[in-house]
Amino acid sequence: MLTLNHYHNQWIDLRSDTVTHPTEEMLDAMVKADVGDDVYQDDPTTLQLEELAAKMVEKEAALFVPSGTFGNQLALISHTERGDEVLIPESNHIVMHEVGASAVIAGVQLRCIPDVNGCITIKDLQYRFRDGDIHNPRTGLICLENAHSSGKVIPLADMQEIFNYSRSLGIPIHLDGARIFNAAFALKVDATDISQYCDSVMFCLSKGLCAPIGSILAGSKSYIDRARKNRKLMGGGLRQSGYLAAAGLISLKKMVQRLPLDHENAQYLAKRLREIPELEIFDDRLDINMVFFRIKKKNFDSDALVHYLSKKNIKINLPMAEEFRLVTHYWIDKRKIDWVIMIIKEYMQKAL
Amino acid sequence: MLTLNHYHNQWIDLRSDTVTHPTEEMLDAMVKADVGDDVYQDDPTTLQLEELAAKMVEKEAALFVPSGTFGNQLALISHTERGDEVLIPESNHIVMHEVGASAVIAGVQLRCIPDVNGCITIKDLQYRFRDGDIHNPRTGLICLENAHSSGKVIPLADMQEIFNYSRSLGIPIHLDGARIFNAAFALKVDATDISQYCDSVMFCLSKGLCAPIGSILAGSKSYIDRARKNRKLMGGGLRQSGYLAAAGLISLKKMVQRLPLDHENAQYLAKRLREIPELEIFDDRLDINMVFFRIKKKNFDSDALVHYLSKKNIKINLPMAEEFRLVTHYWIDKRKIDWVIMIIKEYMQKAL
Amino acid sequence: MLTLNHYHNQWIDLRSDTVTHPTEEMLDAMVKADVGDDVYQDDPTTLQLEELAAKMVEKEAALFVPSGTFGNQLALISHTERGDEVLIPESNHIVMHEVGASAVIAGVQLRCIPDVNGCITIKDLQYRFRDGDIHNPRTGLICLENAHSSGKVIPLADMQEIFNYSRSLGIPIHLDGARIFNAAFALKVDATDISQYCDSVMFCLSKGLCAPIGSILAGSKSYIDRARKNRKLMGGGLRQSGYLAAAGLISLKKMVQRLPLDHENAQYLAKRLREIPELEIFDDRLDINMVFFRIKKKNFDSDALVHYLSKKNIKINLPMAEEFRLVTHYWIDKRKIDWVIMIIKEYMQKAL
Amino acid sequence: MLTLNHYHNQWIDLRSDTVTHPTEEMLDAMVKADVGDDVYQDDPTTLQLEELAAKMVEKEAALFVPSGTFGNQLALISHTERGDEVLIPESNHIVMHEVGASAVIAGVQLRCIPDVNGCITIKDLQYRFRDGDIHNPRTGLICLENAHSSGKVIPLADMQEIFNYSRSLGIPIHLDGARIFNAAFALKVDATDISQYCDSVMFCLSKGLCAPIGSILAGSKSYIDRARKNRKLMGGGLRQSGYLAAAGLISLKKMVQRLPLDHENAQYLAKRLREIPELEIFDDRLDINMVFFRIKKKNFDSDALVHYLSKKNIKINLPMAEEFRLVTHYWIDKRKIDWVIMIIKEYMQKAL
Repeated sequence: MLTLNHYHNQWIDLRSDTVTHPTEEMLDAMVKADVGDDVYQDDPTTLQLEELAAKMVEKEAALFVPSGTFGNQLALISHTERGDEVLIPESNHIVMHEVGASAVIAGVQLRCIPDVNGCITIKDLQYRFRDGDIHNPRTGLICLENAHSSGKVIPLADMQEIFNYSRSLGIPIHLDGARIFNAAFALKVDATDISQYCDSVMFCLSKGLCAPIGSILAGSKSYIDRARKNRKLMGGGLRQSGYLAAAGLISLKKMVQRLPLDHENAQYLAKRLREIPELEIFDDRLDINMVFFRIKKKNFDSDALVHYLSKKNIKINLPMAEEFRLVTHYWIDKRKIDWVIMIIKEYMQKAL
Repeated sequence: MLTLNHYHNQWIDLRSDTVTHPTEEMLDAMVKADVGDDVYQDDPTTLQLEELAAKMVEKEAALFVPSGTFGNQLALISHTERGDEVLIPESNHIVMHEVGASAVIAGVQLRCIPDVNGCITIKDLQYRFRDGDIHNPRTGLICLENAHSSGKVIPLADMQEIFNYSRSLGIPIHLDGARIFNAAFALKVDATDISQYCDSVMFCLSKGLCAPIGSILAGSKSYIDRARKNRKLMGGGLRQSGYLAAAGLISLKKMVQRLPLDHENAQYLAKRLREIPELEIFDDRLDINMVFFRIKKKNFDSDALVHYLSKKNIKINLPMAEEFRLVTHYWIDKRKIDWVIMIIKEYMQKAL
Repeated sequence: MLTLNHYHNQWIDLRSDTVTHPTEEMLDAMVKADVGDDVYQDDPTTLQLEELAAKMVEKEAALFVPSGTFGNQLALISHTERGDEVLIPESNHIVMHEVGASAVIAGVQLRCIPDVNGCITIKDLQYRFRDGDIHNPRTGLICLENAHSSGKVIPLADMQEIFNYSRSLGIPIHLDGARIFNAAFALKVDATDISQYCDSVMFCLSKGLCAPIGSILAGSKSYIDRARKNRKLMGGGLRQSGYLAAAGLISLKKMVQRLPLDHENAQYLAKRLREIPELEIFDDRLDINMVFFRIKKKNFDSDALVHYLSKKNIKINLPMAEEFRLVTHYWIDKRKIDWVIMIIKEYMQKAL
Repeated sequence: MLTLNHYHNQWIDLRSDTVTHPTEEMLDAMVKADVGDDVYQDDPTTLQLEELAAKMVEKEAALFVPSGTFGNQLALISHTERGDEVLIPESNHIVMHEVGASAVIAGVQLRCIPDVNGCITIKDLQYRFRDGDIHNPRTGLICLENAHSSGKVIPLADMQEIFNYSRSLGIPIHLDGARIFNAAFALKVDATDISQYCDSVMFCLSKGLCAPIGSILAGSKSYIDRARKNRKLMGGGLRQSGYLAAAGLISLKKMVQRLPLDHENAQYLAKRLREIPELEIFDDRLDINMVFFRIKKKNFDSDALVHYLSKKNIKINLPMAEEFRLVTHYWIDKRKIDWVIMIIKEYMQKAL
């Protein structure tokens, strides 16, 4: 019989990898962190994290920021002038999940590009690139997201092609690499193979890497100097950030390498979900640690399912556009997946 | 043999209907206009224009503004709060030709929708409408453009359907009706049949209506009160605007009714252009006073053609995405069209 | 016995010099203007005006804009980056009368400096100049206003001193010279003696110079190129602006030189107002075409006075902070002033 | 002979109370914190902190934010509409130390009021309050700072008077209460006696209260709901914020009550500094945990002093406008003060 043993509590939380809490080792590192006041730039642990983070994506410098949204918006304001146009796949996080911040903080015009799971073509960009005509905003930035929240990655060749194009026009590229290490494993390359094709990259220490709080923005030295000042403007100048940075250091040193396990577990979860005839699994979007599926039955009561699971200590989100998403991470293993499958099967038998 | 007699000069200007200068009657009305200081709201001619303009689109109130771009941006800032998302067909003027102003002045996020000549479907909107989730900006406004600058109009049924949908969600609609009267003739309806399906409408007194400067923003009384203050903020509070309003009154009283002639001339121009085998005319985009064509030959030297025409006193714009656009208006008649055709033919014989 | 003969109507309007309507000569020039589409930069009259305007303040280039507020806000956005701090005397028009536009359009932080009639000292600036500390916005611009709307001018020596200081720090100066020619006459210098101490200057063709609509922004060639694009963004790209420019040309060629008459009439008006014992005239603020006074009696009913004058065809504004302002201009002569004095005396005898 | 025993390192850091690192008890609470994903609002420790924080300033609700600057800017954007004018003493943190953010994020016009150590009068506000004239921005907010960074507090009677005035006009008040508990002790009142006179209040858990990171914004329920969404927009939606909240809870439960000791130590530090004849202590600004002094000698080499102290493991900031500021806090006791005095005396004997 299955029994569950969860680190902090009894929940099996598949809503997102943002729900990951730190490991014991991280907590231990946090409590022992050597700290200072990072606004004065004398927090040694934060400085150490920023140095390692820059190195891992082969950029000159890096900056610790409170969240992925913060890092993306900081990237925008640090690359652009107000009124610039930003070419961006419509389904990207910056368009979809950042509360319209781009127009408020950076004051830039998002030019959404229809995309397929975050992928766009050179032609999509060429068509939208602006010359100096008086009616035109300046094309100030291209944004990409890899891995993409659809569960897919952008092929390296695509990134290279877009990068070469952007180079020819002198337009920088910002990469929302919240899950860049997941993307790297899915593409079977190093993170630096991806980050070489952008001018700045944001990636998260939370999510799959388990740090409680924090993301990184990396780029050239002069860019990060500018970003440091803009971070203060945006209220992200923290004090003893070393406690968070200490966890982030473990993320980069220890957690990156175990991400393939989450991908493997996602594959396992998908395989087991396929046993349930009422579900349609989106097999073409299984690149990383996410599994998407829908219920075949029309007018299925999603709330009831979510509620039922919740009573069994399983947390999942309501579907978006009828699509359920389950996310694997450090605190999800095969035994928990088996338990979840059992419960969903149980429900389907009752409900349908 | 053809001889040309142009009002002010010898040019035949087919670049746009923005090049129209006023008629003698307009100039006469301008010089005799009764004026005051419109910031104090005591310019009688401006007040009279605003009253008539409101009536012509059946809105409670209207405001004179210096340009179409001004009117559109004023509409945005007066409908929205900073950070709102605006659903808008990607090819609209607000996206394409207003220098990224929406993010600078109104501070709103444009959510571009792929469109076919300005047309979108309810589904396009439904898919993008935002609920109150914490990651979402508020969907603050829907924008449409009719007539559309592709030379097409949006069918009335489409506008009605979108309007009903927007009503059900409580989202206002702004119509960029720079050429609303052209649209009305093309749709064989009154302008009010179109404007009933929006909360605010901007239309131009310049362009086909020949006034030298000026556009109108119309909407509810409270909306226009708000817009009047925002117009001052944007630097559009004018003083003795009555001189411009006097021309605008003639635009509305006399020029609207003659627009069908421009459409007829566009048809005639298209017909004559079809005589030239090197050209492909876009016959499906002949709704208003614009004719679009392309040169079939690859790597055709457009600059040379434009330059040649220029030496013959004919002004046309360079093609955009290989598409030439010729625009008919008050100062273009069939005789001038015949002259233009003759010159183009002449050139094609030499050039190809 | 006094009889009144007003050009367009019977009103004697002392509210502002913004109420001036054009002269016959201006109207004649307007109706005969050679025009084109100024967005295509082929309006010859506008180009001619911009050339002359630049010359009159000895700047490389100039741009026609729809209003003084438009010109000031355009100056701000063209000098600064979002988030810059602008050092500005608190009583300046940009702070007081432009609806908070600076934070909306340019996105700059106004750092108001307590001033005496628009005058500030080097010390006021030194104290507020920002170094590169991470907490500091960049000091991006210094703004001055000369003549100042208090009726005073800033001495040339003050402007020079501030200019030299700004030069040493590399901070540009924008001058709101809405009434720069009034300032020049008051200071007994040329306008260029003033404008040499700023990087950009805005001045109005309306107001004392009688053009119906329009102002000028002048500066270096590259600055005006930038401003031209920003003008389009702000909706100030006009079409056949030549009609307005034609009036503006007369303003610069003929009206500038007659401004001393308005100053003389202001002196005369002040002298005559001194005859009325109930009034206190602010004799120290009589530099230009404005006369300020207050009613000595406490709780005097200003509305009643304004209403009474209005019935006698005299327009004055309600007092601000208990201060009445009367403004002389082209349409005000000594006979009208005598009439006004007679009416005020009449009222005071009745009222008090 | 003096020996030094510092918790984490050997430094005596008098630059600010922002340099405080957590106590052992805090670290212990952090490591044991019960956490969740706060964007999903299921971090129990953060919720608990927000509840206690709201209670301590008697507001309906509170929100955890990453920094004081973040909290202040969030307050601005959540109270105002773009273009509003904010009345604020010029020396306030929002004007001086937040990188011009107010114009970038909230898009509001700061109307700086000359102040004496953060104090302004009703008259200062009355003079600047805006009516509905078309030239006027809306007066959208009044900001105050108590305790003020000059080392002074605003008397309660002043706050009450300003509050009553703001109530009569319907304008909200935001209090930058980064050190509200210091202010309360200085005024010999409860924090709620101060916070009753504002609509929103920001206070810091870091600074004197020793939490490593984090501040609170408190206000009405509906206001905090709005702020929660705006916090996401600004990138301040954190994940497992419970680790920081755990420290913050200790701040509120244990550290608030010991702040008087810092004030006492500041008094002691001032007393001892008075022994040094080369210094002038600003005795009138000793309300809280800050001591300000200047060196009487002209052209004193401040860099050299700061450098000398640094070699003795004492950190102080360079003077601003020739004014040194030393700040006492949890990690500063009388023995350390004695050591600092000894070193300064030593230096003065050598240097002067």
